[in-house]
Order: sequence, then C-alpha cells, then structure tokens
Amino acid sequence: MNVMNRRIAIIGGTGALGTGLAVRWARYGHQVIIGSRDLVKAREHVELLSHKYDLVNIRSASNPQSALDAEFVCIAVPYAAHETTLIDLSSSLEGRIVIEATVPLVPPKVSVVQLPLHGSLAAHTQSLLGERAKVVSALHNVSAELLQKPNAEIDCDVMVFGNDEAACAEVMTLIEHLDLRGVRAGPIGNSVAAEAMTSVLIGINRRYKAHGAGIRFTGLPQSCSA
Amino acid sequence: MNVMNRRIAIIGGTGALGTGLAVRWARYGHQVIIGSRDLVKAREHVELLSHKYDLVNIRSASNPQSALDAEFVCIAVPYAAHETTLIDLSSSLEGRIVIEATVPLVPPKVSVVQLPLHGSLAAHTQSLLGERAKVVSALHNVSAELLQKPNAEIDCDVMVFGNDEAACAEVMTLIEHLDLRGVRAGPIGNSVAAEAMTSVLIGINRRYKAHGAGIRFTGLPQSCSA
Repeated sequence: MNVMNRRIAIIGGTGALGTGLAVRWARYGHQVIIGSRDLVKAREHVELLSHKYDLVNIRSASNPQSALDAEFVCIAVPYAAHETTLIDLSSSLEGRIVIEATVPLVPPKVSVVQLPLHGSLAAHTQSLLGERAKVVSALHNVSAELLQKPNAEIDCDVMVFGNDEAACAEVMTLIEHLDLRGVRAGPIGNSVAAEAMTSVLIGINRRYKAHGAGIRFTGLPQSCSA
Repeated sequence: MNVMNRRIAIIGGTGALGTGLAVRWARYGHQVIIGSRDLVKAREHVELLSHKYDLVNIRSASNPQSALDAEFVCIAVPYAAHETTLIDLSSSLEGRIVIEATVPLVPPKVSVVQLPLHGSLAAHTQSLLGERAKVVSALHNVSAELLQKPNAEIDCDVMVFGNDEAACAEVMTLIEHLDLRGVRAGPIGNSVAAEAMTSVLIGINRRYKAHGAGIRFTGLPQSCSA
C-alpha cells in the first residue's frame, strides 16, 4: 500500500480496458470505484475482481456517484455510449481530472479509422466539459487483454495529451503506477493520433497474427517524466 | 547496382524529405528523377547530390515530366503546395503508383495536429486521382535529417496505407530499399494516424530534447513483408 493513494473512478469499469485499469491501479494501492449504468453488474464485477486479485480497495457505484467520490475519473466506455454518458455525468465531473480513454471505434469495421466529425474525441470531451474539468487523453493503445494480467509486461508507450500541464503531470504519474511509460504528446487535439492508432493496431494484429501489438517511441530518454 | 531497379520520381525532391529519399533510392540502384517547379534549382540540386554521393542514376525534370518518366511518383511537397501540385500533375499520374508522403503541417504550429477538413490528406489524394492512379501513403514519420545520412540507421517503422494490395506490396519493397521496415497499416483513410503522428513526433522532439524521435511497432514478426 502506498502513501499517496488516490481515488480513481472508472466509468465503463466492467469493460475490458476498465477492468485492466481497475485491477492495476487497485493493486498499486489506489482507491478504485467501478462506475456502471448497471449497478448489479458493477457490484458482481467488483466481487469477482476483489476475490480474484485479493483486493480490498475497490468498490462499485453509479456513474455519477463514482465521479463525485473520485479525484480522477477515467472514461472507458464504448464509443456509441460516449456522448450520452458524458452528458449524464457532466455536473458530477466539476473539478475532476478526466482521463479520456474512449476510442472512436465503429463496429464492425474496427480496424478502419473512423474519426468523429469534430476530429479528436478527447478534444470534443474537453469542449463539452469546458471549464468544469481538465481532460487528459491517454491509454488508447494499450492492450486491454494484457492490462488485465497484472504481472504482464506491456511493450507499449502511452501517449498523454492535454491542455493543462499540472493535470497531465498527475496522469503521467498514474500511468507509471500501471507499470507503463507515459509520453507527453501535445495538446488535447493531438489525441487524434492515438485515437486513430487504435484502429491501426487492431488491423496490424489481424494482418500479422500478433496479439497485443503496441507502439514505442524511439530516441527518447528512458524515463519521460512529466 | 541491382537488377530490379525502378524509375522513381520525387515531387518536391529538393526538400529535406525528398532529398533523403532520392539519395537512398539512388544509392540502392533505382533511377531517381527529382521533380520541381523550379528547373534551375532542381538541376543544381541534382549536381550537388550526384557529386556528394557519387551517383549517376539521378536527374532532374519538371514535375509533370518526372511523373511521366516514372513508374512510382513520390509526393513530398509542403502542405500549402499540395493541392495545386496534385491538380497540375493529375494527368501525368495516369497508371502510376503514387507514394503520398506529404504531411499536413500548418506552420508555425507544426507540433499541433491540424488535419485537413476531409480527414486524411492521402485519402483526399486518392479521391482527387480516382481511378487514374493507385495511392499508397507512407514515410510520414521518418526523420528527413537522418534519411539524408545514407549510412545512418533509423530506429523508426514506416506505416504503409493503401486500398490496392499489389501497389502496397511494391511500396513495401521500396521501403526496404531505404533500409527501413514497412508495416502494413490498413486502407488509405487510416493514413490519418501517420499524418497526425508527425506533429506528435515534432512536439516530442522539442519537449524531450530529442533528435529524430520515431516509432516502432512491438509484438510483430521482425520482417513484415508485404
């Protein structure tokens, strides 16, 4: 257990990405709140994870309540549910740091980049929330499958985008706690690079029969601290 | 000198990226034609490169003539000149494989992703050219500075996008001849991932005081042949 543990809500916490993040952050020692529209499902999921990984610092709540209870709110919902989720949550996000991890995938063609009309999804999130919350975009390219194996080494960097330096620095630290390297990659609108990359990686996995293909930046210092 | 040398025109061949490509492809043994709007500049540039790198298989021509003389036409012009260049060239590109390497950078904010209205620049190229030519998008993320040092090892993969399998396979081979690894990354519209990544890499170079930061895909077989 670490001294500096934080309260992190994960909206869409019963999904694959949300589960991986929840388990890794909880094992590090953070207080994790699994948010879901379906409270029964969320509670069962928390019971499962607590038992499987021997965790006490993980619980469930409704989406708005989980956001109200947290300092960081990570959004990891299916693209189709993104806008309504965000609008429902909006007033509960006041003053929070929002970690936007939702990828604009449009099934069934998930290996084809299909950007939102307004370009970057995370930039859209920031403009919807305005001054209410600081949005940091991250975690789009990491294999959810590998994240869920808390001891698996993940050979992938995490691009981190945002307009607020301090918020980005805090999220960079949380990414280290997942055993991942964060790389500061510019303002929130640049997030389109990571959002599009997810579809590229899905396609690369298929074409080259790989599992969990990732990307690494080369030519940087080993640690890219905030 | 290799048996299978090809005729490659480089539109914007006096620029940094074009120069790097010209030198490396010519040294491999391909016939390189430097295209430019400025014939005097193109001729002087070819004289310089021929002398500096001891090359005989490189010459200059107008943009349309270089395209007419080539099998592959690589477009590496400044974004501001892209659309007019392409419209001028259009009828000379009939039946060619067009390698689109132009990045939508908008000075002075080149580290900020500023996508064209229609999304991917290369997809726009393909739609402008229609059935006349097969467009393959590639080479956006490679350091032009390092490309111009023909013996420098470049720690960066090249994403290759296109709708035509055979054309992509041919371009993958040309990329190997630059001493680079190509990775097939989906249809032409996916090119937005590489186009946006260029601005991200420019920003990363600045923030981390790196030179020629690049990206590598992890979890793939070493060779990603076409």
